Amino acid sequence: MNEELLALCKRAKAAAPSLSVMSTGEKNRALLLISEGLERDKDTILSANAADMEIARQNGTSTAMLDRLLLTDARLAGCRQGIAEVIALPDPVGRIEEGIVRDNGLKILKNRVPLGVIGIIYEARPNVTVDVAALCFKSGNVCILRGGKEALCSNLALTHSIRQSLTEGGFSPDYILLIESTDRQVTTEFMGMRGYVDCLIPRGGTGLIRAVVENAKIPVIETGAGLCHLYVDEGADLQQAAAIVDNAKTSRPSVCNSADCILVHSSVAKEFLPMIKALLDSHKVELRCCPASLAILGQTVRVTPAGETDFDTEFLDYILAVKVVDSLQEALDHIALHGTGHSEAILTRDMERAEHFLRMVDAAAVFVNASTRFTDGNVFGLGAEIGISTQKLHARGPMGLKELTTIKYTIYGNGQVR
Amino acid sequence: MNEELLALCKRAKAAAPSLSVMSTGEKNRALLLISEGLERDKDTILSANAADMEIARQNGTSTAMLDRLLLTDARLAGCRQGIAEVIALPDPVGRIEEGIVRDNGLKILKNRVPLGVIGIIYEARPNVTVDVAALCFKSGNVCILRGGKEALCSNLALTHSIRQSLTEGGFSPDYILLIESTDRQVTTEFMGMRGYVDCLIPRGGTGLIRAVVENAKIPVIETGAGLCHLYVDEGADLQQAAAIVDNAKTSRPSVCNSADCILVHSSVAKEFLPMIKALLDSHKVELRCCPASLAILGQTVRVTPAGETDFDTEFLDYILAVKVVDSLQEALDHIALHGTGHSEAILTRDMERAEHFLRMVDAAAVFVNASTRFTDGNVFGLGAEIGISTQKLHARGPMGLKELTTIKYTIYGNGQVR
Repeated sequence: MNEELLALCKRAKAAAPSLSVMSTGEKNRALLLISEGLERDKDTILSANAADMEIARQNGTSTAMLDRLLLTDARLAGCRQGIAEVIALPDPVGRIEEGIVRDNGLKILKNRVPLGVIGIIYEARPNVTVDVAALCFKSGNVCILRGGKEALCSNLALTHSIRQSLTEGGFSPDYILLIESTDRQVTTEFMGMRGYVDCLIPRGGTGLIRAVVENAKIPVIETGAGLCHLYVDEGADLQQAAAIVDNAKTSRPSVCNSADCILVHSSVAKEFLPMIKALLDSHKVELRCCPASLAILGQTVRVTPAGETDFDTEFLDYILAVKVVDSLQEALDHIALHGTGHSEAILTRDMERAEHFLRMVDAAAVFVNASTRFTDGNVFGLGAEIGISTQKLHARGPMGLKELTTIKYTIYGNGQVR
Repeated sequence: MNEELLALCKRAKAAAPSLSVMSTGEKNRALLLISEGLERDKDTILSANAADMEIARQNGTSTAMLDRLLLTDARLAGCRQGIAEVIALPDPVGRIEEGIVRDNGLKILKNRVPLGVIGIIYEARPNVTVDVAALCFKSGNVCILRGGKEALCSNLALTHSIRQSLTEGGFSPDYILLIESTDRQVTTEFMGMRGYVDCLIPRGGTGLIRAVVENAKIPVIETGAGLCHLYVDEGADLQQAAAIVDNAKTSRPSVCNSADCILVHSSVAKEFLPMIKALLDSHKVELRCCPASLAILGQTVRVTPAGETDFDTEFLDYILAVKVVDSLQEALDHIALHGTGHSEAILTRDMERAEHFLRMVDAAAVFVNASTRFTDGNVFGLGAEIGISTQKLHARGPMGLKELTTIKYTIYGNGQVR
């Protein structure tokens, strides 16, 4: 057992009760101080980030990864804007969800309360540090952050700023804690901190999430992995369908709600596939095709036969798997077998088939005639999100502040016995 | 991998979609048929149970265990009554919890849907087979049951009857499945059936629950363990407090919401402890006392010094741990350290201290001036319960039909892109 980690978890647990009952006004005051502190400490934070970037460059880190690691004036302003949005969100804590007075006079209230201590395990995007700290804090939870080792200097500077702002405002700095060790063994021990950490939320790629699910001995909320399908039905409005597929694939390929596979009904494939190919060519999207779609498109630039794993891959890139199906049922079966329960769409003009698809697809979000890119906490009315849950327990789909809370029954009696 | 188990899980997964969209009327019709079938097959079921009982007796099973294993005419009638209650409960599935129409015309609905396939792992009470099957079925979930090996003949007879009733009514018998192997290895494999089973619910003692939590690779809802405290505050109405403690301890010691420990403020201990001793004597309750309470009660019959583990034991028996505390804070600290997050109570006349206790105790149910025995699905207005959750994610406290469901967003568009 790592003694430093244990000490950190004990501090988190000791801090949790006072944060759990803090008023919304006080929490908002603290968040504003944190935001102002980020501006005050901007130079220090950007210097620390420059150090991270320098090491990363020396290590030959990829351009995409470097971009995620980078903090700029604009990105810090984005973090502060995010805090402002969290301040504006309604506080779920303290709500009485429902209540009942029994015949014997017992008054039973169902109250919304924070989870307690939340552990967040994430990768090398330092702006996540600020985003999740603000969401956990507003929902009354102490957070213990474990960011990617590439961002350690940035995360140290950010949490130092945040904790200093808390202290100056008269709050405990232990409401927001960072694991400073980058030892993998420490991370594994952190996932076993039963009794100290109430819930773990991994944020990042499939590998990270799988590692947390497999090693955790405390409840985990899985987020992320989205292998999203769009099914182009017979009789679909093909112009509209092509525009939606194009948007779902190319508007932001690196995010989980982007398209990975299109299923095209055989009766429209001959017309539709050349249409979508023309649109996607402007983004140089590579198509990985089943034999039937390959026969239609022919051997041409950026069209290749689909390999064994292409229908099970979340590409997060300008690549799209393509499959021709002979029926709605074949599309449903394909989605049931290959989907990750994130976002799925049908593009159709047939109401009955649309409703059948909505009912039979087992996923967090199922769309008719719209882009899967809309699966998002803001779009769904939750405000800022901490992630998109692809599991069924506790939360499914975008998770906002409410999903970072639980309930507690309080019962008022005057001597009732059973 | 056990081939039979895999085949069973595949049947469950194949059956899930049709049950998930079955109308409430059809589900109630099936439940009524199941209830009538239990009456029709009563003799077969009772004979099978007699065989279980005979083997159990030969194995020298304890009287308490034999009682739990026993089925009688009355207990079968109780099962049928339970089914009738489930039929009468509102169906959570198909509800649209909320919805929003966005400015761009996207209509986003938040629908309540079944979890899919639920695995229930329980001990040797065959009536649980009927209770949980009815709750899972009504909430649109296929259940895979793994009962205690002592009840195998009874469970085979019960599920055979249930499945025959389903078949005769024109329903798939695979909505309710029993694992017939009693091999421990099969149970462990069952807990790893990711992709087939959506959630595991263990029902039984602490050992069973711990085994499931540690071995499961799919989400688990922990139920059960209840180490419940009652804190008798200074200035409490001692007559009332004694009646509540007596009820919490002796009305049904074998259940999770019964009292295990009382914490008595030192200013009232001298008066209160002899009062409660006199009441509990009529049930021959053994008191395991801290030094201060031992000094007050003296060395007398059924009063012993508390051993090392007594403040961490859920007794489920006529035994009560007793501790004198010097302050409300000491009581809160003791509960934070030793409680299991189930049910905790304060007995007081002081409103401010009552509210402080309600706010600071981290448990599913926190009582003022009432018996912890009221933590119950029926009392809390949920109807029949599948268990009492002591975890914070997904469900906390009594779990009814709604807690066996999840949500699915459905989004209607007409060409929207992002």
